[in-house]
Amino acid sequence: MYELHFAVPMASAVLCTLNTRHDAAMVSTLLKHSDAKVFLVESSLLGIGRDALHRLADPRSGAASIPVLVTISDDTDSIDPDVCENEYEALIKSTPWHFDIRWPANELDPITLNYTSGTTSRPKGVLYNHRGVYLNTIATVLGYDITPMPTYLWTVPNGWSLTWVVAMQGGTNICLRHFTTRVIFDSIARHGGTHMGGAPTVLNMTVNAPAVDRRPPSTETVVRVMTGGAPPPPRVLAGMEELGFVVYHIYGLTETHGAATVCTLTPEWDALPVEERARLKARQGFHHIAMEDADVKDPTTMESVPHDGKTVGEVMFRGNTVMSGYYKDVDATKESMAGGWLRTGDLAIRHPDGYIQVKDRAKDIIISGGENISSIEVESIIFGHPAVLEAAVVARPDDHWGETPCAFVKLKDGTSSTETEIIGFCREKLPHYMVPKIVVFEDLPKASTGKTQKFVLREKAGENRPKTAKGVF
Amino acid sequence: MYELHFAVPMASAVLCTLNTRHDAAMVSTLLKHSDAKVFLVESSLLGIGRDALHRLADPRSGAASIPVLVTISDDTDSIDPDVCENEYEALIKSTPWHFDIRWPANELDPITLNYTSGTTSRPKGVLYNHRGVYLNTIATVLGYDITPMPTYLWTVPNGWSLTWVVAMQGGTNICLRHFTTRVIFDSIARHGGTHMGGAPTVLNMTVNAPAVDRRPPSTETVVRVMTGGAPPPPRVLAGMEELGFVVYHIYGLTETHGAATVCTLTPEWDALPVEERARLKARQGFHHIAMEDADVKDPTTMESVPHDGKTVGEVMFRGNTVMSGYYKDVDATKESMAGGWLRTGDLAIRHPDGYIQVKDRAKDIIISGGENISSIEVESIIFGHPAVLEAAVVARPDDHWGETPCAFVKLKDGTSSTETEIIGFCREKLPHYMVPKIVVFEDLPKASTGKTQKFVLREKAGENRPKTAKGVF
Repeated sequence: MYELHFAVPMASAVLCTLNTRHDAAMVSTLLKHSDAKVFLVESSLLGIGRDALHRLADPRSGAASIPVLVTISDDTDSIDPDVCENEYEALIKSTPWHFDIRWPANELDPITLNYTSGTTSRPKGVLYNHRGVYLNTIATVLGYDITPMPTYLWTVPNGWSLTWVVAMQGGTNICLRHFTTRVIFDSIARHGGTHMGGAPTVLNMTVNAPAVDRRPPSTETVVRVMTGGAPPPPRVLAGMEELGFVVYHIYGLTETHGAATVCTLTPEWDALPVEERARLKARQGFHHIAMEDADVKDPTTMESVPHDGKTVGEVMFRGNTVMSGYYKDVDATKESMAGGWLRTGDLAIRHPDGYIQVKDRAKDIIISGGENISSIEVESIIFGHPAVLEAAVVARPDDHWGETPCAFVKLKDGTSSTETEIIGFCREKLPHYMVPKIVVFEDLPKASTGKTQKFVLREKAGENRPKTAKGVF
Repeated sequence: MYELHFAVPMASAVLCTLNTRHDAAMVSTLLKHSDAKVFLVESSLLGIGRDALHRLADPRSGAASIPVLVTISDDTDSIDPDVCENEYEALIKSTPWHFDIRWPANELDPITLNYTSGTTSRPKGVLYNHRGVYLNTIATVLGYDITPMPTYLWTVPNGWSLTWVVAMQGGTNICLRHFTTRVIFDSIARHGGTHMGGAPTVLNMTVNAPAVDRRPPSTETVVRVMTGGAPPPPRVLAGMEELGFVVYHIYGLTETHGAATVCTLTPEWDALPVEERARLKARQGFHHIAMEDADVKDPTTMESVPHDGKTVGEVMFRGNTVMSGYYKDVDATKESMAGGWLRTGDLAIRHPDGYIQVKDRAKDIIISGGENISSIEVESIIFGHPAVLEAAVVARPDDHWGETPCAFVKLKDGTSSTETEIIGFCREKLPHYMVPKIVVFEDLPKASTGKTQKFVLREKAGENRPKTAKGVF
């Protein structure tokens, strides 16, 4: 997959990487929607890949053509040529060495197609162009201090520009098929890791790793960690700092090439207590150098909110690292960019120092008795409980209040707690209306990026009302 | 001047900074050629400024209009309002605080106009555009490790993108009206300087600073120095390293926003002896991230030279950080970019590791008995003599050989040498035909960037044949 980030654009084609967790039905839907011409599948996933092609071959699929299958042998297997036809390495060996790169005719030509949180009924294919990717790669290098010749530990499957970032800086990639906290600490120690990425849940795992899995922080090399995908709980940020990691908190969405803002660290914060510093670092910050502007606006009037730390608006972006649009979906593209700004659906405030802070995704906010409750704020409080490993708060339908907060909690190994205790803990720190009415103890469902899948929890809690930023205002 | 790098583009105007060493005749020529509308002059240069305007007012000047004079008070003076009319700070104070930035309509719109090595008969105005400046600023930050919040010591009057670079990284500028090595060492120590620029002559001054002027290198902060404008003699690079500076060797011309290549340092070099490392670092290297390509080509066939470390060609560039063109000079623009590449007039080889090494400027090369002699190679040898502070070698007309090398040498204070000794020293290290026939001991003429003005020395030596890269082949 790393090589294909270079080879496919050099052949003037468009790369579309698919989530390895998709089933055959989803894969066939995306192959069809993306008009794929060549389908490269690693040997460990050949079952799903062949099943997907089989589905496309059915005339009822409506597919105009069937892509050519190229299999990639997993070098830890022994490859049976009857099983792996059109094998990738064999094809490369049989290809003439010289190849003239086919440069894009226009810098806005597409380079990758990235499916995001779609369903089989309506896939959303985010198109990036060469210009956006070039600039986002540079912004990533600059924003997270990707120093020359880094050693990058891959824990995030979709790295947005990180494939190109590592190459641009002459770096080394540490690729993991699966990872645990032990693997993270071991890989850093063994390969001299300098940079890694990870959702706040991965950071949380790292902070809570059993002592036997940990390695002491290196005195020579600082490991820089980019985190995003959800606002990191201050306690997790503080814990990472104590372990010797430097955390860069980024924010964005697939539609903005991943990171679009960085919580820029200022030297004044160094003198603050670790908890206070973590609270400031948990904010989303400012747009990076390749994004023209990030703002928090009223989604109806399009006016910017004041920098008062309390007026809520919708985060919006415009600039070179906003996607070209959704593939074959002009309506969704127009809607997402109405008024000339990319609407994120995320609700935020701006602090007097200009830093943006996301309060919640519009669809995650809980509206209780006319009050907007930030699920993130409630979660950070629950995270502060010493027995809590993970927490997610969603809306639960309520005849009287409309909605009430419902907490899903995973406890740390060897600890125990009760619903009453968690509710009591929240009552000490939150206004009454924000306190969860119900606490459920169980494992939290995760996406492949490590993000908690709140839509699964909302279904469990029985919430079904769709929300938008406009609906919240 | 720093502020105007932001204010002028924000007003949708084009900034043209003039060399403070120009006389009134040259200034009036450039005001006329540039179609200047506003002329900002610092109080210490008001005499020349008023004289230049006076010349423009003469109907024989052919100027279509006279620019408005704005005077900038030097805050070390006490300002007489009768002397300084339209004073800059006073104008700012009387201007409404709110101003809507006038963004460029097109990213290729001009942003600055930079006159380069022109004469009053034919000024060459190099136009930069917004896109090129944006990308060059980023490339500068990346290429020379301009870490966040740098403290930049200004010793190069024309900093190309450095004005924007320092702002982009939230840095501090140390501005000097005049500088000596004592001022350099003092400024770094007093203000915590982290970065500076300087032609090899400035580095040479630094290396040869009297002990009383020096400060020991800081153990906490590394000072990074960008050098370019002429290939730095290996002895000077080695001397800077010994003083604790990290030198970034860059190469380019005004037509490429200054630096277009960087001699990228590779970790393998760290293990080499200091002299060998300095020899590798004295090469020009590779194009930076914002330049599409740099190559060494036969200027007639346009074929790339092999990477054999000996075939000579002309350095050529193409990409976003090549100028838009010469202002009001279509012919010169076309000629400079014939074949789709910017011709530099610099003669170079490519080493097996791909690094470009400039052997000489076409006009500086000495052609003796049919052999091409690199003036730079002869200069590096003379630089190795312990009594030599500076050296420049130019062509001297010769009835028998066509040309022979003529050396101009400045000795270190308190040392002495003779023509015979310098010639003998060269004979030990150079083929006979490359050894200077004449050695002149005197101060070398310098441009405001610190570059040695070889055209002055060539006049002294009596050379008058113009050369071009094509003529040399």
